[in-house]
Amino acid sequence: MRAVTVRNGNVALVHDHPEPELREGECLVRVHLAGICATDLHIINGYMNFDGVLGHEMVGTVVSGPPELRDKRVVCEINCVCRKCDMCSAGLANHCRNRTVIGIDRRDGCFADQIAVPQRNLHLVPDAVSDEEAVFVEPLAAAYQVVAQCPIESHTNVSVLGPGRLGLLVAQVLAQRGCKLTVVGRNPAKLEMCEKKGIQAIHVDDLVARHDRDVVVECTGAPEGLGIALAMVRPRGTIVLKSTCAGPGGINLASLVIHEVTLLGSRCGPFPEALDALARKAVDVRSLISRTFPLDQAPEALEAAGKPSNLKILLKCNAR
Amino acid sequence: MRAVTVRNGNVALVHDHPEPELREGECLVRVHLAGICATDLHIINGYMNFDGVLGHEMVGTVVSGPPELRDKRVVCEINCVCRKCDMCSAGLANHCRNRTVIGIDRRDGCFADQIAVPQRNLHLVPDAVSDEEAVFVEPLAAAYQVVAQCPIESHTNVSVLGPGRLGLLVAQVLAQRGCKLTVVGRNPAKLEMCEKKGIQAIHVDDLVARHDRDVVVECTGAPEGLGIALAMVRPRGTIVLKSTCAGPGGINLASLVIHEVTLLGSRCGPFPEALDALARKAVDVRSLISRTFPLDQAPEALEAAGKPSNLKILLKCNAR
Repeated sequence: MRAVTVRNGNVALVHDHPEPELREGECLVRVHLAGICATDLHIINGYMNFDGVLGHEMVGTVVSGPPELRDKRVVCEINCVCRKCDMCSAGLANHCRNRTVIGIDRRDGCFADQIAVPQRNLHLVPDAVSDEEAVFVEPLAAAYQVVAQCPIESHTNVSVLGPGRLGLLVAQVLAQRGCKLTVVGRNPAKLEMCEKKGIQAIHVDDLVARHDRDVVVECTGAPEGLGIALAMVRPRGTIVLKSTCAGPGGINLASLVIHEVTLLGSRCGPFPEALDALARKAVDVRSLISRTFPLDQAPEALEAAGKPSNLKILLKCNAR
Repeated sequence: MRAVTVRNGNVALVHDHPEPELREGECLVRVHLAGICATDLHIINGYMNFDGVLGHEMVGTVVSGPPELRDKRVVCEINCVCRKCDMCSAGLANHCRNRTVIGIDRRDGCFADQIAVPQRNLHLVPDAVSDEEAVFVEPLAAAYQVVAQCPIESHTNVSVLGPGRLGLLVAQVLAQRGCKLTVVGRNPAKLEMCEKKGIQAIHVDDLVARHDRDVVVECTGAPEGLGIALAMVRPRGTIVLKSTCAGPGGINLASLVIHEVTLLGSRCGPFPEALDALARKAVDVRSLISRTFPLDQAPEALEAAGKPSNLKILLKCNAR
């Protein structure tokens, strides 16, 4: 089968990759659409020392598995867990000590014709949700994790830093809460996209940071984002950190101590809420699709995903 | 009067410093004892661009003020607040937008014969608390702020990183909660001091960091402390950051995001709890006193406070 692999830091489209072997409790899924995420680009640059098939955002059809799932459309949670360790026992299975992560950590991903996944990771996709929408469930769930970790009320003054692929999803999830919301970014087209959705957008050069936001969600994916967030958040306020590359850029955390700020790391989120939001059309994801490439053009697709002007780049792996 | 001043980065013991002028609502306090804190040493090195009389930990006697306070022994909160801004109105006066801070930010401190302080900042010292104990109220309150911000139960697995002046107070406050407590440090004498108090102590070179602590309190005052804390804390655990100099040393915060760690900045704390603990003899502070210098030897005292082997260095400003 076809698969996009990373081996020793080299990414390649392989045409004769072996078919996945099913282990106990696993299903075989034919991939329809897959989404390219910033993490995929970091992995190509060496993050996680990953070796295998890339990709973790997908929608597909079960081709081999239990009768109740066969031929059904599914999306797939990315953490493959042991259900035995202290984290799993504590109800924190996403933090399983023994987990592998699809396309990220010691488990083949979905930029391929087919993928083997644990049956318990699958969620059925309702008819009301198209493939183009369902492929956003994984990042949209990560956006819902922000409100799962940090209470947002109508009076909460929230800013999203970085209206990229993830930031635009986070902003839409927050907007549903009716909070006082602003998005801060650099790219005029993305800021305009926010304004069209009725979300106030501010260019970072016009931002006057005055320690007045209750909550800042840092989605820039850039090391300097945390410094800007620290200048925006109020004393005793909260910064939700979504960027795995944030931090090392010489950020001085004295301000975090002086203002007693809470910094919350935030990763994967609840699939059911994301699927429900898409079924209700509460979140628009279609306007975030910059372009869809066939799997055979995966190298061009990955290059396109790296351009700051682009939002979501999809890979069409197989017809529905 | 005598005063230790910082001017343009130069610290000096001045013998003819003008007496403090009292503004409305202020009392004049004759200082008995003052404590030297890591923040004082940072200020001498340029932190806060401070210009004035140094020092913010003290016990003294009111010599001028309302009758109910006159001749009474007092300790003094360091944040001088407006009681009008949004933070004061929200009950977060320690984060007052217009605050000055005694000996730290635009307000003369207590390494002097006398100091002018807002009357509402004063707390009476019970007879059961000696001067040598009362001078620890400010840092001990900062230690109590840890448990005010972060719930600690008997089953909570907590580590204190850095058994210095502040870390040893934090450790004792935590030990009272009956939690599973370890202190991690480098200095054998300080580790032994923990063991003598019945607190398990581990040398940092013997530490096997396995992401298993519920809470890590970072008190090292060193940039690398946060990196060690991130390796120790469990997924979804909490790091309480007390060091204002932590952070810029190239710490990679990816681990904070992946493990969804909460990082809590923590500063000043509740004086009444600290005074009560000292009155009950629940916390031992006397063994933390390395040496007491007369105010006339302030330069030598500040030099001694900079030595890693020393814990608290006190300045005897006036007889009780």
